[in-house]
Amino acid sequence: MSKYWSEFVTRLDPYTPGEQPAINNLTKLNTNENPYPPSPAVMDAMRDAVNDDLRLYPPPNADQFKQTLAEYFQLTPAQVFVGNGSDEVLAHVFNGLFRQPQSILFPDISYSFYPVYCGLYSIEYNKVPLADDFSLDLNDYRQANGGIIFPNPNAPTGRLVSLPAIEALLQANRNSVVVVDEAYIDFAEEGASAVSLIDQYDNLLVVQTLSKSRALAGLRIGYALGSAQLIEGLERIKNSFNSYPLGHVQLAAAVASFTDRDYFNAMRVQVIDSREVLVGKLERLGFAVLPSAANFVFVRHPEHDGAVLAQALREKNIIIRHFKSPRIDQFLRISVGTPQQNQQLVDALDEIISV
Amino acid sequence: MSKYWSEFVTRLDPYTPGEQPAINNLTKLNTNENPYPPSPAVMDAMRDAVNDDLRLYPPPNADQFKQTLAEYFQLTPAQVFVGNGSDEVLAHVFNGLFRQPQSILFPDISYSFYPVYCGLYSIEYNKVPLADDFSLDLNDYRQANGGIIFPNPNAPTGRLVSLPAIEALLQANRNSVVVVDEAYIDFAEEGASAVSLIDQYDNLLVVQTLSKSRALAGLRIGYALGSAQLIEGLERIKNSFNSYPLGHVQLAAAVASFTDRDYFNAMRVQVIDSREVLVGKLERLGFAVLPSAANFVFVRHPEHDGAVLAQALREKNIIIRHFKSPRIDQFLRISVGTPQQNQQLVDALDEIISV
Repeated sequence: MSKYWSEFVTRLDPYTPGEQPAINNLTKLNTNENPYPPSPAVMDAMRDAVNDDLRLYPPPNADQFKQTLAEYFQLTPAQVFVGNGSDEVLAHVFNGLFRQPQSILFPDISYSFYPVYCGLYSIEYNKVPLADDFSLDLNDYRQANGGIIFPNPNAPTGRLVSLPAIEALLQANRNSVVVVDEAYIDFAEEGASAVSLIDQYDNLLVVQTLSKSRALAGLRIGYALGSAQLIEGLERIKNSFNSYPLGHVQLAAAVASFTDRDYFNAMRVQVIDSREVLVGKLERLGFAVLPSAANFVFVRHPEHDGAVLAQALREKNIIIRHFKSPRIDQFLRISVGTPQQNQQLVDALDEIISV
Repeated sequence: MSKYWSEFVTRLDPYTPGEQPAINNLTKLNTNENPYPPSPAVMDAMRDAVNDDLRLYPPPNADQFKQTLAEYFQLTPAQVFVGNGSDEVLAHVFNGLFRQPQSILFPDISYSFYPVYCGLYSIEYNKVPLADDFSLDLNDYRQANGGIIFPNPNAPTGRLVSLPAIEALLQANRNSVVVVDEAYIDFAEEGASAVSLIDQYDNLLVVQTLSKSRALAGLRIGYALGSAQLIEGLERIKNSFNSYPLGHVQLAAAVASFTDRDYFNAMRVQVIDSREVLVGKLERLGFAVLPSAANFVFVRHPEHDGAVLAQALREKNIIIRHFKSPRIDQFLRISVGTPQQNQQLVDALDEIISV
C-alpha cells in the first residue's frame, strides 16, 4: 500500500482471472475459451484492417458495429452499447446503473467479478443463495433492491434460467435495473436469450460477449442491449472514461463475426454436441454433472476430492478451473474442448480415479 | 435522464472527441494523429497476430509488452502499467491516485478530459491559470493539493515545461502524486521527458501513448511509468475493472513499435521538421504561433476571428480544431500533416485572409 493511493484502493480485492500459461502441449480447459478458431471471414476482415488507417482514431461511437448488432437483434442502434470486452461493459453497468441507495442482488455462486466491481464503486450487495441443486430461483429476488444481476446460463454452474421465469421477475421488479449476463447464452437452447424482452421492459439490460461463442477472447469485445435510456446512461459513463474503447481491428472483426452466420452456427452446434458427449462420458465415470447450457460443465465426483483431482489433471498437463470457495470446492469447472481434448480429459480422469 | 441511472450520471459532462468524419478528400488536421502510417514491422507483427490464438484470452499482465517498455526506458516491469489507450490509463490514475481529501490541480487551459474524469470520480479540482503568453509556471502549483497533473508539452497550446522546472516542483511537492501527461513528448527536444526522474521521485507518474508519435491511434494503447508503489495502485484498479484491457493484436503491435527504433525516429524527426516549416509559413501570413514542442501548432490571426477561419477552412475540406472556450476562442489548433497537407492548409489560409 502507499500514502499516494486513493483511500479505497487498499481495500480492493481484485478479480483473479484463470491462468494463461505459456506451456506447450497443454490441454487448456480452464477459461471457457472456444476450442475452434474465429471464422475465416473474421480473420480476413482483421487482416484488411491492418492498414495505414491505424494512424487515425477509430469511430468513437462504433456506428457500423452498432448498426450490425441492431440489425442482428432487430433493435435500433440506440439500444446498443459496445465496449472493450464484456468485463468493461459490466464495469460501466455497475458504475452507471448500480450505485443506488439500496443493495444490489446477485447469486452467491456466480461470476466472481461482481463483488469486485462492487468494491471498485462502493456498491452494497446481498448474495442470494442458489438452491441445494445449484439452480437459480428468481422468486428469491422479489425483495427490495437497487438492481439485480445474474449470468444466464450461470457461471460456474452452467445452469439455465427459463425465459418465462425472467419475464415474471421483470413484471414484479419495475423499479430497478435487471441485468442478464448472457456470456454463454449461444450454447443454450434457441430462444433462451432475454433479448426478445427488451422492447417490453425498459429496465432490462442484456450483456453479451464475443469471447466465447465467437471465439474472440483475444480481441476483447463485448456489448449490452437494452432500452435507449439505459444505453444513454452507459454512454455517458463511457464518454467520461475513454472515448474510443474499441480500435479499428476489433471493430472490423466484430462486424465480420455477426455477418458470417453459417460459421458461427456450425461452431456453436459442434460445441453443444461435444458437451453432450462429454457429459455422458463423465457420468459413466461416476461424476455428478450439473445440467449445462454453457460451453463448460460443472462436475464433482462423490469419492474424489475436487482439489486433488484438479492437481492430478495438472500433472498430466490438463488444466481445468477449481474454485476454493464455499459450497463449490468439490467441483471442477471443465471447458468443453475439441472431441480429442475432451477424450484426453476423460482418459486422464479415468486413470486418476482408477488408481 | 432516467430513474434507473446512478445518481451522479445525470450531472456528468462527457468529453467531446475531435470529429472522425467519413468524408473523402478531407485534409484532416483536427485530432493530432500522425500523418505517417505505423512502421511496416508493426504491420507485420499485427498480421502475424491474426491467428487461431485469438480464441484465447490475452496475457492479463501483458508481461512481454511491460518487459519491452522496461528495457526501452531502463526501468523494471514493476514500474510499468499498460492500458487501452492513455485515456483509460488516465481514468485509472484519477480513480486510484486522485480521489483525495484535497483538490487536485491542473492548468485552466489543458486536456479537456481532466475535468471529465473529475466528474466521473467526484474529484474536486482547482484550475491554475496559464500566464498571458500561455506558458505554464510550475511555481503556481506550490500550494496545498491532492495531486497535480499537466500535459507536457501542454495541449492545446503545444508549450513545453523544462525538466529542471519539473524537478523543482517534485522537490517542493512530496506529499501528493505529480502526473506528467507526455502524449506529445516525442515531438519535443531530446531529454525533455520526465521519465529520467522516476527513480528519484516515488510520487512521479509519467503517462505516454502510442497514438501520436507511434501512429497507432486506431489501436488504443497507452502506458504509465512510475514507482512500483504507484503502479501497484493502478494494477489494483485495473484488476477490479477489466483483467485483459489489451488484446493479442494490440500487444503484438506495441512490442514491435518499440523494437523498430529507426522507423520511429525517422517519422518523429520528419514531423518535427515539417512543424518548423509550417510555423514559418504561418508566421509569414501574419499568424501568431505559440512555440510548439508537439505535433500541432496553436495559432491565431490578429485580424481574423478564430471561429470564422475554422469554418472557412471546413468549406475548403480542411478540418482543424477550434475550441469555443474562454481565452482560446481566437485560436486554431492545427495538427502537423505531411508537407503536402501543410501546404494545402497554408494556401487555403492565404486565400481566406486575402479576400
